[in-house]
Amino acid sequence: MKLPADEARARFSAAPVARLATVGQAGQPHIVPVTFAVDGDLVYTAVDGKPKRGPRLQRLRNILANPHVALLTDYYDADWDRLWWVRADGLATIQERPAEVAGLPELLAGRYPQYRDSPPAGPVIRVAVRRWSGWAAAPAAAP
Amino acid sequence: MKLPADEARARFSAAPVARLATVGQAGQPHIVPVTFAVDGDLVYTAVDGKPKRGPRLQRLRNILANPHVALLTDYYDADWDRLWWVRADGLATIQERPAEVAGLPELLAGRYPQYRDSPPAGPVIRVAVRRWSGWAAAPAAAP
Repeated sequence: MKLPADEARARFSAAPVARLATVGQAGQPHIVPVTFAVDGDLVYTAVDGKPKRGPRLQRLRNILANPHVALLTDYYDADWDRLWWVRADGLATIQERPAEVAGLPELLAGRYPQYRDSPPAGPVIRVAVRRWSGWAAAPAAAP
Repeated sequence: MKLPADEARARFSAAPVARLATVGQAGQPHIVPVTFAVDGDLVYTAVDGKPKRGPRLQRLRNILANPHVALLTDYYDADWDRLWWVRADGLATIQERPAEVAGLPELLAGRYPQYRDSPPAGPVIRVAVRRWSGWAAAPAAAP
């Protein structure tokens, strides 16, 4: 069953992890798991303190060249009657200083205790979602 | 820690679900969760019997126009020392009749009991992986 946009957004918002897809040079897609927080039709995902190589992460370089992104949350179970997924399609911008986005550090810290002690220092990706879509095998599939 | 290609492939192969990213018109990425099976450096993902709208799924239309794809498996835990992910970047082709790919129905049925009773009837996406990459928070993070 197709999920209404409101339910799609609610399921997405409650998930602990999403996958961010961006598009690189020569049309090569890139995917990476991300922590995130939802505020209405905005999704924020932070670049945390894990060691990263190079001056700029691939996802950031991709977004600077092409702001179209997609985010996915899903639930997998050996019982396929419980499957569901939600995708958020939108346009991304990069906020270099997450601390300057009102309420954002609190929003992220509220979802991830790790961010209470060490807020993400790197840039934040802000996705303006244009479409929430999703599917569930059954109405009772909510987590 | 960065994962060696062999370990990345091993972790990927054992995961029950992956996410497939393709690129659509105007550079819009698309992501969807998929069942899959790995055979060496090939990843097969079937289109199963779930109701789909339209003559062709978005992922298939995207691949016909741009064969570059990425697949991701990941493990999330509230304990971030257990996180890991693996990405497979490659080129996709569409096999219209999975039953004609030697050993493929058995490979999929071996991983998913659901496919024993009803093998996927739709096309299969075959990804020739050119790069296995991955990251784990700690060496002990294997599932």
